[in-house]
Amino acid sequence: MLQGHQSWVFANRPTIISTGTVVGPFEAQGPLVEDFDLLHGDLWLGQNSYEKAETKMLEEACEIAIKKAGLQKQDIQFFLAGDLLNQIISSSFAARTLAVPYLGLFSACSTSMESLALGALIVNSRAGNHVICGASSHNSAVEKQFRYPTEYGAQRPPTAQWTVTGTGVALLSAQGEGPQVTSATIGRIIDMGLSDPYNLGGAMAPAAVDTIVAHFRDLGIPHEEYDLIATGDLGRVGHQISLDLLRKHSVTLSEEKYTDCGLLIYREDQPMVFSGGSGCGCSSSVVFGHIINRMKKGELKKVLIVATGALLSPLSYQQKESIPCIAHAVALEYREGGVND
Amino acid sequence: MLQGHQSWVFANRPTIISTGTVVGPFEAQGPLVEDFDLLHGDLWLGQNSYEKAETKMLEEACEIAIKKAGLQKQDIQFFLAGDLLNQIISSSFAARTLAVPYLGLFSACSTSMESLALGALIVNSRAGNHVICGASSHNSAVEKQFRYPTEYGAQRPPTAQWTVTGTGVALLSAQGEGPQVTSATIGRIIDMGLSDPYNLGGAMAPAAVDTIVAHFRDLGIPHEEYDLIATGDLGRVGHQISLDLLRKHSVTLSEEKYTDCGLLIYREDQPMVFSGGSGCGCSSSVVFGHIINRMKKGELKKVLIVATGALLSPLSYQQKESIPCIAHAVALEYREGGVND
Repeated sequence: MLQGHQSWVFANRPTIISTGTVVGPFEAQGPLVEDFDLLHGDLWLGQNSYEKAETKMLEEACEIAIKKAGLQKQDIQFFLAGDLLNQIISSSFAARTLAVPYLGLFSACSTSMESLALGALIVNSRAGNHVICGASSHNSAVEKQFRYPTEYGAQRPPTAQWTVTGTGVALLSAQGEGPQVTSATIGRIIDMGLSDPYNLGGAMAPAAVDTIVAHFRDLGIPHEEYDLIATGDLGRVGHQISLDLLRKHSVTLSEEKYTDCGLLIYREDQPMVFSGGSGCGCSSSVVFGHIINRMKKGELKKVLIVATGALLSPLSYQQKESIPCIAHAVALEYREGGVND
Repeated sequence: MLQGHQSWVFANRPTIISTGTVVGPFEAQGPLVEDFDLLHGDLWLGQNSYEKAETKMLEEACEIAIKKAGLQKQDIQFFLAGDLLNQIISSSFAARTLAVPYLGLFSACSTSMESLALGALIVNSRAGNHVICGASSHNSAVEKQFRYPTEYGAQRPPTAQWTVTGTGVALLSAQGEGPQVTSATIGRIIDMGLSDPYNLGGAMAPAAVDTIVAHFRDLGIPHEEYDLIATGDLGRVGHQISLDLLRKHSVTLSEEKYTDCGLLIYREDQPMVFSGGSGCGCSSSVVFGHIINRMKKGELKKVLIVATGALLSPLSYQQKESIPCIAHAVALEYREGGVND
């Protein structure tokens, strides 16, 4: 199953039989609104804290995915999730509600693909069948923890990204119809010495490039293999840096085939977005909502998702540490009428 | 590979070919001192923060395990680790030093067995060969984050446990000699409504029992199967509660066959220990140090480790949430001269 140094090839092609995506009011004003299952007009979701609102989004996304698959909660064998909050409380409290065996993960904004890679490993190895993988973030919960409470209205530089209020989950199965997980490349930490928490895209770009280069090297496939390569979430600044770095590695990707989840989720004229979207909920909602929908519509056959994570903490920043970054890649393929059985 | 609802049976028996354990000065005064590879007299490890000291311990443990196995850093294919600090920075910074593909985990003090279960899944599925699994904690870094800086000298009640300054890692391989990982049971969240962060053992005991009962049910084996069942870390209070609860589930374990890592690591007369040890570094150092050594000496053939985690955060506590708890179990077997090839 291991191919090359750090990639897994899934011979049994675990299938994403359904997804669930839930977003907040700001994301509902973005261009992908049609791709999300549930939109919230209230940032609090009727809860008395932003953290509980985030938990509720994740619970709702799981419910939606289970319902769409025609399953019951008790059919789910494993739940793999993570988020940006200290001790990943959104995920753990949602896991309490789901009440199924749970594996907590932390890989910052790359958690979406860490969970999908490990979930696919479980399904591919026949270690579980119905596995939910996902990640979430809530702008106000994350900002107050990592930077400033949003109520302060603190100024942010143009390199800053907007933390998505959203969540996306995928329900993986050994049987069924849907996009199939064909391979994954697990990233290693890349730290180029950047320490600015307002320019995470710039910090993470080298990690994205390292994983993309490793993926093509391990699998021995040409760069043209994929109809789309989507990083998440480098934003405008990081996306440009990654393009430059890829060129240095002799990887030339055309602009229409190389995008970033943080560039897709908001309109350019949405206020305060600056460099683009970020947060665990960005790549998870964009991939499990928008990109999976495009695959099902026949617009994309093979895609590579390269979720990026900045593994800093407020404390590591205060202690003058640079930002360790990582990226995990997962390849998806949709064959129309292709059913695993 | 899935057996029953939530257990994995590893037919290829991934082998712990070496371990690395590093502890602080207080643990070096405990009864297991002979079982640890490296003892530190300085709680700071020469670093300028407790967080960096924790990272250094984890780096040292990895180095020791790699050296004992006669390998080089570049032979390690995956690193799976987690800790109690916000955004698991100790693990991520150690992963930066190790510079190999990294999967960050969070399951509080049950991370030791979450990492070992997932690492065994990787090796068993031929998705990787040399995989390092581990977890760490540092008393002063953890206490200041979850409760009070240790310098305050805050009073603690008798149900409180002492967070271990220590780390333990295991190096898993498809070939070689050592204790073999035969099965794992992934836990689900159990929350009985307790919310006292000074009585985590009491909160976690029902989760330990749920996983132990699930393990025997899934595998269809008698309770006498194991020479030792060690939870980690329920402490004195939680250990007694778990014994009572197990009896209600008609599981009767003899006192010499049922222990807890939090009861093993300190002498009863060490000051301030109260209910016992806790923290990610407790079960990881006790299991990968003491228990593995006992297996190699021939004192134990089959053991079941049931690592327990309290998935609270200071914020969830402040928001009056109860404590979601979990336990992951991993079964180990040592056959003298038993070599995987």
